Formats: sequence, C-alpha cells, structure tokens
Amino acid sequence: VVSAALQADLGRLLGADAVRPGDRPEYLRDALTGPDLSPWADAVALPADREEVAAVVAYCCEHTVPLTVRGGGTGLAGGAVPLEGGVVLSMERVRAVRSLHPLQWRVEVEAGLPTAQLQRIARENGLWFPPDPGAAEQSQIGGNIATDAGGPHSFGFGTTGAFVLGLEAVVPPGELVRFGGPVSKNSTGYGMHRLLVGSEGTLAVITSAWLRLLPAPERQLPLAAFFADARSGCEAVDQLIGSGFEPSVIDFFDEPTVTATAAGMPYRLGGEARFMLVLEALGSAEAAEELRAQMADLLTETGAVLVESPTIPSEVAALWRWRDGVSGVVTSLRGGKVSEDVIVPVEHLVDAIEATARIGREHGLEAMSWGHAGNGNLHSTFLVSSPQIPAAEMAIVREATERLLKEVIALGGSISGEHGIGWLKRDLLPLELDPAVLELERGVKRQFDPAGLLNPGKVLPVG
Amino acid sequence: VVSAALQADLGRLLGADAVRPGDRPEYLRDALTGPDLSPWADAVALPADREEVAAVVAYCCEHTVPLTVRGGGTGLAGGAVPLEGGVVLSMERVRAVRSLHPLQWRVEVEAGLPTAQLQRIARENGLWFPPDPGAAEQSQIGGNIATDAGGPHSFGFGTTGAFVLGLEAVVPPGELVRFGGPVSKNSTGYGMHRLLVGSEGTLAVITSAWLRLLPAPERQLPLAAFFADARSGCEAVDQLIGSGFEPSVIDFFDEPTVTATAAGMPYRLGGEARFMLVLEALGSAEAAEELRAQMADLLTETGAVLVESPTIPSEVAALWRWRDGVSGVVTSLRGGKVSEDVIVPVEHLVDAIEATARIGREHGLEAMSWGHAGNGNLHSTFLVSSPQIPAAEMAIVREATERLLKEVIALGGSISGEHGIGWLKRDLLPLELDPAVLELERGVKRQFDPAGLLNPGKVLPVG
Repeated sequence: VVSAALQADLGRLLGADAVRPGDRPEYLRDALTGPDLSPWADAVALPADREEVAAVVAYCCEHTVPLTVRGGGTGLAGGAVPLEGGVVLSMERVRAVRSLHPLQWRVEVEAGLPTAQLQRIARENGLWFPPDPGAAEQSQIGGNIATDAGGPHSFGFGTTGAFVLGLEAVVPPGELVRFGGPVSKNSTGYGMHRLLVGSEGTLAVITSAWLRLLPAPERQLPLAAFFADARSGCEAVDQLIGSGFEPSVIDFFDEPTVTATAAGMPYRLGGEARFMLVLEALGSAEAAEELRAQMADLLTETGAVLVESPTIPSEVAALWRWRDGVSGVVTSLRGGKVSEDVIVPVEHLVDAIEATARIGREHGLEAMSWGHAGNGNLHSTFLVSSPQIPAAEMAIVREATERLLKEVIALGGSISGEHGIGWLKRDLLPLELDPAVLELERGVKRQFDPAGLLNPGKVLPVG
Repeated sequence: VVSAALQADLGRLLGADAVRPGDRPEYLRDALTGPDLSPWADAVALPADREEVAAVVAYCCEHTVPLTVRGGGTGLAGGAVPLEGGVVLSMERVRAVRSLHPLQWRVEVEAGLPTAQLQRIARENGLWFPPDPGAAEQSQIGGNIATDAGGPHSFGFGTTGAFVLGLEAVVPPGELVRFGGPVSKNSTGYGMHRLLVGSEGTLAVITSAWLRLLPAPERQLPLAAFFADARSGCEAVDQLIGSGFEPSVIDFFDEPTVTATAAGMPYRLGGEARFMLVLEALGSAEAAEELRAQMADLLTETGAVLVESPTIPSEVAALWRWRDGVSGVVTSLRGGKVSEDVIVPVEHLVDAIEATARIGREHGLEAMSWGHAGNGNLHSTFLVSSPQIPAAEMAIVREATERLLKEVIALGGSISGEHGIGWLKRDLLPLELDPAVLELERGVKRQFDPAGLLNPGKVLPVG
C-alpha cells in the first residue's frame, strides 16, 4: 500500500479529518534525544473511539501494514517511534472518562487521557492516583500502562501497573476484548492484563483501563537533605529503610546533577552540600509531620550537612518544580543525553552511582545520575551533543552504556526499571534475559501478533 | 512408561528415598471437598533442590509423562490433583531460605517453604508478609504464588502476586530460568513473572521467589461489628470505604455463616446481631487506635447493633481463631461444601450475597457466604454430603453454581477472585472470557508447554 492510498483508505474508515500525512515530525518522535532512529510512517490515524481503533487495527492486519500506537510521546526509549512505515495510531482523541466510582476508589478511563487529567479527576473527588512519571501533562495513561511507568511515588505505592485492575484492548486481527475488569482481584485464567502492562504496544492496542485509586492523603510533606558525597547519602538511605521508616518518596541527585541544576534550586547550598535526597512523608497531618521530623533527625544523625523541611505551599511547590525540571535542565546542557533507567538491589545503589561516574570518566563522557533511591533505580546519564551526534561520539556512548548495563546485571540488577526497552535497548535484552526466557517472550509476541505488525522493531531483539 | 519403571527411573534421578508410589492418597487430593475427580498418578517425586526439580521436569518432557506440581495441597479448586497419571512433583523438600535482607525488606525463598514459616521469618526480623490465605501452616509460598492467593489482608495490601519481585522456575523441556529478580521494579521485556503468578503449575514449575516484605506495623487492632441483615452491613461497608477510611481488612459473614459458627464465636450475640463484619486497623499504636475508634463510631452510626473492639491479646487471638475456623466448621456441617470465590465490583456485594441465598433456596441447597467484603470477594458456599455425593445432588450443585457465576458476571464481576480455576472451573472459563482471550491463553500455554504435560486438565477448558 503506498502512502496516498493508505491515507485514502484510512480517510474512508475514520473521516478525512482524522488522517494526517506520515511525515508530521510531531508524530515521529518521542522524548528520546540523541540517537537518530530514522523514523518514517505512511500515515497518522487519529481514531475517535474504540470502534475506530479496532477498525484501524483490522485494516492494518488485513493489508499487512505496520502499526505503531502512540500516547503522549514522552517515552525515553524510542518506543513510540515508527521504524518500518505504515500507520502511526495516535490515541489522543480516545480520552473519555467512561465511569467514575469515587466511593469505590475506582475509575474507567480511555487510554488517551492525559495522566495529569486523571490525577486531577482523582483529586477533585477526594482521591489520589499515586503514579507520577515525569511529563504528566503530556503523557497519557495508556502509554503509562504500556511502559509500566514509575516515578518518585513508585517507592511507596508501586508503578502504574499496580493500579491496573483490567484492560480493554484491540488484539490482531482487530478484535476488541477485555482482560480483567472492575474488580480488585482476579484469578480467572492467566493474568493477561498483567502481561499487557509494560508490553509497549507490541501485543495489543490498549483502549481503556479500569484503575484503582486511593483516598487522598491529608498531608504530603517533602524533605530535602544534602550530603558530602554519594556514599554518605546512600548510607543514610540504608539507615532510613533499615529502621523501618516508610516515606512515600526517596529520590536522589548526585553531585554533577545538583551542580547542573543549582540555579533553579530553592536552597542556598554550602560547600559540603553536594549529594541530595528528596523524601516525602505522607498521611494524616499529624502522622506526616511526625514522620518527617523523625526522618530529618535520622538524616542529620547519619551525616546530612543540610536538611530542609519546606512547609508553606509555595516552598513545597518550588522544590517539586525544581525536581520536575531536572531531566530537562540536564538535556539542555549539551542538547541531548542518553539516559538510562537501570535498577539494582537497593543495597548496591552507591555502587551503581559510582559505576556511572567511573564509566563516564573512562570514556571521556560527562556523566551524572539521579533517580529513585528507595527503589535502587538510577537515571544514569551521558550527555551528548544534539540534534546531530557525530557517529564516533554515539559509538562511545553505546560502549559506555553497554559496560554500565553489564555492571548493573552483575550487581543483580536490571537494565530497565521504569522506561521500558523500546528501540533503545532491544538488542541489549539478551545481556539480561536467559535465552529460554527470550524465546518464550518471542513466542508470546507471536501468539498475539503473528504477522509482527504491532510496533515492529521494539522490545525484542531484531533477528 | 508403566508405574514401576517410572518409579525406578525417578529413583535413579533422585534416590529411592525420594520416590513414593502413585497411589498415596495424601498426594492425590487438595482441599476441594465434594466432587470426585478420580485422581491418579504413577509416582510421587520429592526432589531436594532446584536441580532435582529440573531433572524431573526434563525426564517428564523427554518421556512424555504428565507432571502435576503440588505445594501444601490446600487449594480449593482441585488445582493440585493429578488427573492424567504420571508424576506428582511435591515441593515440600525444596524449602530453603536462600537469602534474607531484612534491612532492604526482601527475602528469597524456595517454593516449598510453608507460608506461615515465611511469615514467622519476616516477624522475627521486624518485618511483615501481609498475604494471609487460610491454612498458612500447610500452604507453601510457591502454591500461594501459583494461585495468586489472597486472604483478609488483600484488601489493604494486595494478593500474593503484589509481593513477588521475581521468580526462578523450570520451564519445559527442563531448563531452570529466572524471571525478574531482586529489584523492586522491572520493565525489561514482558512481565513474564507476573504471568506466572496465578498460572497454577500449568506453565512452569516455580522453584523460588524474590519477595518484598514490609516493616511490621506497630499495632494491628481488629473490630467486629454486627448488623441486622446483609443490606445494612453492606451499606456500612460502602459508607466506610466512601468516607476514605483505610482499614487493612474488611471481611463479612452472612447470617447462616454466623449461625453455623456461633458456638466458637467469642461474643454473645443478641437477637438482631445476624450479619457480621470483621475489620482491622493497623499502623502506629496511636494511628491504629484512632482509626479503630473512628470506624467503630461510623459503624454504630450506620446501624451496627453490636460493635466489639478486642484489645488484650487473648481477645484478639480468639476473634482470629474463630475467623480462621469458619471454612472448616462450615465443611463439617454436612461433610462437604462447594465453595466459590466469586468477586464483584464492591458496590454489588449485597446483590451477590442475596443471589447466593436465593439461588440456594431455589435449588433446595443450604447456602451461605462470607469473605472479603472490601474486595467484593465472596465465598459463596453450597453444602453437600461427603465423601460420597449422590450424582443427582452434584448435578444440582453444578446447576446452582453456574447460575451464580452468570449472575456475578452480569454484575461486572469475575468467577474467581483468589482460589484460581484449577479443575473446578476450567469448563466455566468461557462464561467470562472473550473467545479471543481464551485463544490467546491457549497460545501462551502452548508456548511454555507445547506437549501439554504440565498440570494437564487445569485452568483451560478441555477440548
């Protein structure tokens, strides 16, 4: 099918208004900067509802056309970037709130609903949706489910998948089906909805989700603590967790990250304040205050050189604004970055932070890391020049990345804790997975998508 | 392979001490009473470690011998009962604690470890493993994972699967592989360890698990509340949840259940005290006390005729002892029961309780229900005479059950909330699942177990 014919066919299915040419740059990228994926597509489809999603999938299966589903395009692994032409299916118009049960802490929303919108709906009803990956205004709940997105609050509450009760999805050759439903537990057959979580559009197109919500906490109080180095900061994290404290967030920022983002930081840092932790205490007003005070004491005892406990809303907002801006500020330093989301057993966090710095140094790359300390989840980052990265520079970054991933695996960790595999790490998957497991994953893919049309070139290694 | 030859072969693999004849009744049943499954096996294998488990799986795959893995045999759906001969592989000797990281709230244990043992290890280290299916002394963690077992605390903390970080398992044709690992999040490839949760031994033999634990709460305080009928009790549950209270347990017991178990109940019930709720408040001593007092007030306001707040340990223990005994007492009434674990959206709990009673009445069966009210999860139960159930009686029970399951599905619910499908409901799966989903599940099964040797006749409908 050539592009023009494909666009005409889609126009007949969806209406001409709902079809765009395949070369619109905003539909050809996600938030991965650095490497050039040479994306291309024949057409962009903007279905209005689940029936139209099913019609597009059916059309693609019938005509052997690749289909790349995209949410908000905020992914960091190239997962939404079309590599083999065909149709980009954007979920942006499929965004209804199908039902809201605030008294039962439950909502059914369509995949294209922006995550921040979901969070607002929850809050307006006295509830709370804890998963908070960055870029919540742009990212969509379907994409968050498809990558099992994490975020700071994953330490206390789990990733997006932990809130998925059931899914509606279109599976090849175009059937709209339901996995799980509006119930809080389900042992009926295999946990297929749990398999779709994190499958990055390669098994099915998720059209809606039943999600659980939680009662909104009365108070959420952040805490910022600074240490002289990574070792003492990580020691404090160990002490904190080992003492049985249950903060909702334990994020960290290493020295180069703190330096790079110091201008937007709401605190004046002295000479020894180089490694930063951001924590949050949550609960009733009384419980949150008490937990925060206890944690502040423990952090001071374990060597914090500065502890900040913002209380008035503008102070709290300033800290989170700085936090939300970290990734963007780091990207702007040189135009691009290759940022990992490796994860290690939490007792090895300091080893992984030090490995990131050492590997960067040895390869002549500016390196830094930050992330979710309580999970042992690091955004190990190498800066690159962008948009055009010299091939030689990219080769060095790839070499450094591969070394880092191998060290992480040797520590008992995993190459992706929250961003997914996408395009970026598909060929690195065999570093971590047993060959037999990889073969089973290929088999699962074949069962859902025998012709290999859904998001081709993603998750599984090519060849 | 005839039984004697099979036993001899297994003896060479494991040592003669580790092999039993296939007719040992204790290896041919689980806790499902009532229906006669006509179980049989050629041999029972008792491997000592993962390598021996892998050797048995490899042997069975090579010689096309069915293999039924069993944990503690406490399942309620016939899932561990061998139906097609071959080997029963009992995990009782594969029960080491491989590693314990109390400061990181993590443990790696082998599948045969009794769940109560895991709970004790956690407690001894200041931690807590919340999942609490009945029969914790007999049931094994591997079986709990294989059924995604629930229990009262699933309301507050999720089912067993919510605590699984990674799994080690043997997949056909006998390879020992790892899915996930000792990290708290994982987006590396498909969520295969989440697929193995609840797969009831039909995809792989789980040999060990990395589990997360939680800091032990300082205080756990139960609360018992009695209402005049199911409608007022369920209304109180709605109010409680809708008000944003977060108890760790909300169980219910309908009038026939309360009547049948009244002798062991630590309270003297007046005339109106017919429908019972058991709740638990958990947290710091102060928070738990406050939550329990607030809940007691709300329950009284919404019509409770009696509220008991046991405080001294012996009173608390007496309540839980009664709770743990409910299923056994009900079974003893007539020798057998067919007990469901249906689940509905929590706002329809009262409809499902009333449907159980009505359907029982219309089919001339003694019916009752209890379960996890906060989850909308009912153990709808029909009493039967046992061990020999007249075929006519069994036919009536099947008819009543099927009606109940259809009503549950019509309410948006599911036919199994925590016991799994096993043998009991395999042929009822199509009532709930889309044909395309069922086909995908069959496809997943084929990928893992192409010869259909693992726990044959379970989960998926026959034919």
